[in-house]
Order: sequence, then structure tokens, then C-alpha cells
Amino acid sequence: MKSMMEVVALKACGLIVEYNPYHNGHHYHFQQAKHVTGAECMIAVMSGNFLQRGEPAILDKFTRAKIAVQQGIDLVVELPYFYAVQHSELFANGAVKILNSLQADSLCFGSEHGEIEDFNTLYHFITEHQKVYDHYLTNALNQGHSYPKANDIAFTKIGGETLSIDFAKPNNILGYQYVKNIFDLHTTITPYTIKRIKNNYHDREIHDSIASATSIRNQLLSENTRKNELNDAIPSITKEKLEEYKELHGTWHDWEAYFPLLKYRILTMKKEEFAKIHGIKEGLENRIVKTAKKADSFSNWMELLKTKRYTWTSLQRVFTHILTNTYSSEIEAYVTERQPSAIRILAMSENGQNYLSARKKDINVEWYTSSKKPYPYQAFEDRIDHAYYSVLPLSSQKYLTKQSYQKPIFKTP
Amino acid sequence: MKSMMEVVALKACGLIVEYNPYHNGHHYHFQQAKHVTGAECMIAVMSGNFLQRGEPAILDKFTRAKIAVQQGIDLVVELPYFYAVQHSELFANGAVKILNSLQADSLCFGSEHGEIEDFNTLYHFITEHQKVYDHYLTNALNQGHSYPKANDIAFTKIGGETLSIDFAKPNNILGYQYVKNIFDLHTTITPYTIKRIKNNYHDREIHDSIASATSIRNQLLSENTRKNELNDAIPSITKEKLEEYKELHGTWHDWEAYFPLLKYRILTMKKEEFAKIHGIKEGLENRIVKTAKKADSFSNWMELLKTKRYTWTSLQRVFTHILTNTYSSEIEAYVTERQPSAIRILAMSENGQNYLSARKKDINVEWYTSSKKPYPYQAFEDRIDHAYYSVLPLSSQKYLTKQSYQKPIFKTP
Repeated sequence: MKSMMEVVALKACGLIVEYNPYHNGHHYHFQQAKHVTGAECMIAVMSGNFLQRGEPAILDKFTRAKIAVQQGIDLVVELPYFYAVQHSELFANGAVKILNSLQADSLCFGSEHGEIEDFNTLYHFITEHQKVYDHYLTNALNQGHSYPKANDIAFTKIGGETLSIDFAKPNNILGYQYVKNIFDLHTTITPYTIKRIKNNYHDREIHDSIASATSIRNQLLSENTRKNELNDAIPSITKEKLEEYKELHGTWHDWEAYFPLLKYRILTMKKEEFAKIHGIKEGLENRIVKTAKKADSFSNWMELLKTKRYTWTSLQRVFTHILTNTYSSEIEAYVTERQPSAIRILAMSENGQNYLSARKKDINVEWYTSSKKPYPYQAFEDRIDHAYYSVLPLSSQKYLTKQSYQKPIFKTP
Repeated sequence: MKSMMEVVALKACGLIVEYNPYHNGHHYHFQQAKHVTGAECMIAVMSGNFLQRGEPAILDKFTRAKIAVQQGIDLVVELPYFYAVQHSELFANGAVKILNSLQADSLCFGSEHGEIEDFNTLYHFITEHQKVYDHYLTNALNQGHSYPKANDIAFTKIGGETLSIDFAKPNNILGYQYVKNIFDLHTTITPYTIKRIKNNYHDREIHDSIASATSIRNQLLSENTRKNELNDAIPSITKEKLEEYKELHGTWHDWEAYFPLLKYRILTMKKEEFAKIHGIKEGLENRIVKTAKKADSFSNWMELLKTKRYTWTSLQRVFTHILTNTYSSEIEAYVTERQPSAIRILAMSENGQNYLSARKKDINVEWYTSSKKPYPYQAFEDRIDHAYYSVLPLSSQKYLTKQSYQKPIFKTP
């Protein structure tokens, strides 16, 4: 019987996502990934309540996971905060470690470039020139360039422009990091990529039924939402859950809602506390405190803070770590683990559950489907989640924080 | 000319106050004090934005100081946070140090007892039995009694009940601390006391035109305020300033307004941070975190927290220190100063200014009337004040925090 199970074990494909919120572009990616990999089980590793760009997710992680399983994803697991709210290297590193632990056979990512062979070439090219590359990278950083800019400079210096990949595009950079981790961690994951269509990552307007998550959030949070365009760009379940959340909890999550809390916290912090926060360096705290006193809103604060050295996203990540009171020492302890100590399942289908049962013997990491056994990251996660829910009414805070102690969302066919 | 000045130097009487808010009972005390001491300059040492009982003041310190000078006080100086938000010993110690530095000739306090000779007797009686007294005090504290209760037990043990003073009454306890500090610090201040009339300290209802500050705040903050009784109990300037503040800034200050901020902060604090907060001991932080998750309001939280060991006020002081992020190490550095490094003048009359000029030579501590020279406690105070103003609209926060950098309120005759 056992050997039978092993024989019929499903082939699994991993996706690395944020679903903020789940839209038609995500659905297209998921469908294409399933098609090109021939996988029978689709696993999404999803950022939790805070995202890679250093922002609160518009809806909490459980609601976003519920939408994903309703749309056909089999298993939604959490990319923990300490990997999620990070620059692309660590983000990719955490996500690939998790997919590897879950025995995923493939990983399929969206990219502007769209040709997987060129990513493999890129990986080998950079690896060959690693020392020179690192030298120029450090140089550029010391000159005060932001990380993405420094990366681009180093890449040009080693002759990267002769390759056909545009290494300045955000999803190409992420894709490279996925491929690099797949190889560096000696996994058996096969990488695939799908060309992203139409909207650019940072576009602020919805042009079509495939819109970027940025443009959709922009529409949702602006006051003169063009309803029709929005409804064309997201599945009805996303629309439903967005409306339900706002009705139940009074608001979606965006930085402006956190501005008073963040300002209070920053103006009562001590110098020694700033020094411990992940991502703070070179006296950034002085600029943060000074501008805090002048800022009229979160976005105004960001404008006042902007410098060549810090990208918008790296500043937002610092604000996220301040809001959640996250120290470098904590992050370092977690991200240096060779493999995750535990994986939290946010939602799954029956198919996803069957996959876990079938591969149980091979999966050498504990997964958590309820709080019956203590989740090793629970205290850390509680802190993050309390910060996230703190802008909601009291009753919503109580209701939503309980989700971490309940069974995950389960979708029957 | 100089010797002339010295000859005509005014006699000054100190009052130790909170004025939360200034009411007819305060005015009676001030008038009586002036009368019995024969002083020509009345100095009020007043708690700042947070009070001895561990509460935000209903109006900010500058507004309360303005009311006091309008009512005839000559000099309102701040009792800094690290002395103000403390048990009665340190509260009294700080206030007497400041009055001593300002060369006050007398100190006049209100008490339930009302006979100064008995306070002197009490002081000498306790000093005589100090060792035995301290022994029983420590014993009672170790048995889990609160500080006031332990004090009362030790007092009974040394035979204090044979004295005519009721040492369980809050203003008698404070009065004893004033007298003790006057003697222990070898000051030349002459102590006076005035019998408090009518309302008890903790009364929640206004009975008459002399009402307790507690009953007045209770009336102000409750929804069915009995306007006539209230107006009978406070001077018109207090009424005016209360209304003006609410109109300009949308609210008065009370703990309920701080509940969301405090809850956010506590649920994102680390164990190691709790350990540094002034007044936290014996695992109190575990109870605080546990009850934070259940509490529906600040008062509900307090009810959930209450134990024999902690009085309501000591718990409120802990919450104040958490809100303002105040460490034991900071407090200890300040309160062990033999005399204050600096005194902040919040408001003064022309008479008050003349007093300072006349006594300039004798006053061996710098006083601060604007921010032209850096006030040594400024960074510390800024943090406290930012926490205090954080519940107000942004424009009010900006406007009110600027007051610390402006000249003090000056009342011409």
C-alpha cells in the first residue's frame, strides 16, 4: 500500500507569490505554470501580513490564502516575515528553501524576459565572474548607490550587457535569485519561467483585464475608483472578499492607516533601540526622527526621507521593522537556518492534503495546520500580526488574531 | 543698589500641585497659604503632562500653568516627569529639592490632619524608630502587600497609633514626606499645613463648591455632566480653557484615549524591553500581555490586572512608563542628582519675574524660560510630551509640541 502511494505521488509545482490581492494576472500565471510543468499539485509560497516591498498587505494572510485555494491553488504556505520583508536575495532564498523542503518538483516564476535558458546562462555567467562582480557591487554601494542600482552597475562592469536578459527589470532580478538559489542550495527543483504580459510591475493604472497588483491597489485605495475596470481585472471572489473585509473590519490595510502609530513609536524610541532595528544604518534614524516631526502623512514622510542611498522599498522595509519592532539579531538567527524549522499552512484543498500525505516520508520539516503543537515561530509571528491588526477595531483585532490558533482553511472539491 | 535689591527680596511660599484642573479647592489652598505664611511670591511646583497617580493630565502643562498664573500664582515651575510619576517619597523629594533650589522660605501643603506640629512630631517619631520601621516595612512588602498598606502596617507596629495623626490618609502621607524632605535635605524651608475641607481626595461626585479634582474630572469625562455643579466648583478661567482646548484639539486627555496606542506598544514589546521599564518587576509583564489581549477598554484592562501586590496607581504608573518608554536606568540617573540640573518655568507673573531677579545670586540652579540655551532634560521631555500629544490630531501635535521651545507664559498685572 505504501509503495503504491509513493508511485502515485503527485507532481508539485511551486509558485512564489504575494497575492495582494489575487487578480487575473496571478490566475493566468498559475494556469500557465500548471500547464507548462504538468504538475498536479500547485503550491503557493505566499508572504504573510507584510510584503517584500515593506508594506502591509491590503487583506490579511488568511483571507488572501482563502481566495487562492478558491481559485484552485492546492496548498498555500506562509513565507515567514523574516524572509518576506527582505531584499530579493533573502526573499528568494527563503521561498526556495520552503519549496525544497516541501519536495516541489518545479518552480515557475513570471519574468519580463520569459526564457528559462537565458536565466540559466545568466546564473553561470555571474557565478564565473563572481569575485569581480562582488568587487564592483561593494564599490558602488560604498559610493552611496542603492542596492538595485549597484547591482546594475556591477552587472554592466562584468559585461552583462552582452547577454540578452535585461537585468534592470524587477521580475528578471527576482527570477535570477530563484534560479541562483535552486542551484546553490543543490535542490532537485526544475525552474520554469512565463513571460509576464501587458502591465508593468509599477504601473499605477489599470489598462486591461491583466493589470498589475500595484495598479489594482491604487484603484482600490483611491477615492474615484473606476469600478468596471477594477472588476474586469480581479476574479469575483477577490471582489467579494475585499468588500466583506471592509464591511467587517472597517478598512483595508495601507501605510496611511499606520501613520499615527508609527509616528508615536518613532518619537518615543531611544537611540539604542533604533540601532537594533533591522535595516537601520548610517544615522538613518536621525533623518527619520527629524522628518517625523514635519510629516503630514505617510507618503509625505517618505518624500521627506528619500535619498539616493535608500530606495523607496528599503525605507518602507525599515518602517515595517520599526512598526513590528524587529531586530537584526532576530532576523539573522532565523534566515541563517539551513532549512526552515517549520512551515505554516494557511490554506489547502483536498488535493493539497493528499499531496502532503503522499510525500510525508520525504518532507523532512514539520508543517503546522493548527496550534495543537506549538509553532516554533509563534511568539515572533504574534508580534508581527498584532502590529498588522492594530489599526482595526478592537473586536476585529480579537477575531483576526485568533486565526493563527485555528485549523487552516480547508477547501473540499 | 544690589544690597537694596536683597533687602527688598520678596518672601516666597511654595505649593506642590498638579492642578488637574485648577478648581476652587486649589484656589482656597493658595489663598490660605499666602495668608498664613505672609508670603509675597507664590511658587507652584506642578507635575507636567503626566501625574503622580500615573495618568495623563486632562489638559497639557502649559495650559494648566496659564490658568494658575491667571488665578494669581506668581511662578509655575515643572516637577519633571521622573519625580512626578513616582510614589510619594520621590514625588516629595523632587518637589522639595526644587523649592529649596528656588530659595522658597516656606512650603504650605493641604492635609486631612491640618496641624503642622503633629507632622513634626510624626517625623521625629518615625526617625527614632527608623530601623524597626524599615524592618516591618520590608516584611510587609515581602508578604505581598502594596506600598501604602505596608507603610500602614509598619507604622502600627512601631506604635504610631498613639499619635493623633491618621497615617492612612493620602494627604497626610504626602505631608509627612514633604516635612521629612524639608528636614532630611537640611533646607531652611518652614513647613505649614492647611486642613483640607469637605471633599475627600478620591470622591467621585461633586458635593459642593469645594470639590476634589477627581470628582471634577469624573464629571467632565462622564456623558451626563451636571453643568451647574461643575461650574460652581471651578473658576471661569478653568471652564474657558477646558472648552477652548476641546474645541482646538478635539479632546481632553484621559487613559481611554491612549488605550489603542498602549495596546499596540505592549503587544509588540520584547521581554527584554519590559525588563527595562521603570516599575516592572516579578513577571508583571506576563500579566500585562495576557490581559492586553482580553481587555475591551483601559478601565477593563486595569480591572483584569488588579492584584493585592499592586495598587491601582502603581499599575497606572507602569502603564505611563510603558507609554513613554521610560527605563529605570534613566529615572535613577535623574532622581539621584543632589539638586535638579535645571528648572523649567512654565508660566510667571511680573511679580514672579521680580522674585527671580532679586534672588538670582542665591539661586544656584539654572532656570529655563525659553529654549535659547539647551534645557538639559529636553530630549527626555520631548519623548514624554510626544507620547502625551500622540492622541491629538496632527496639527495639534505640531502646535503643542512647539510650546517647549517658546518663551514661557508671562502675565503682566
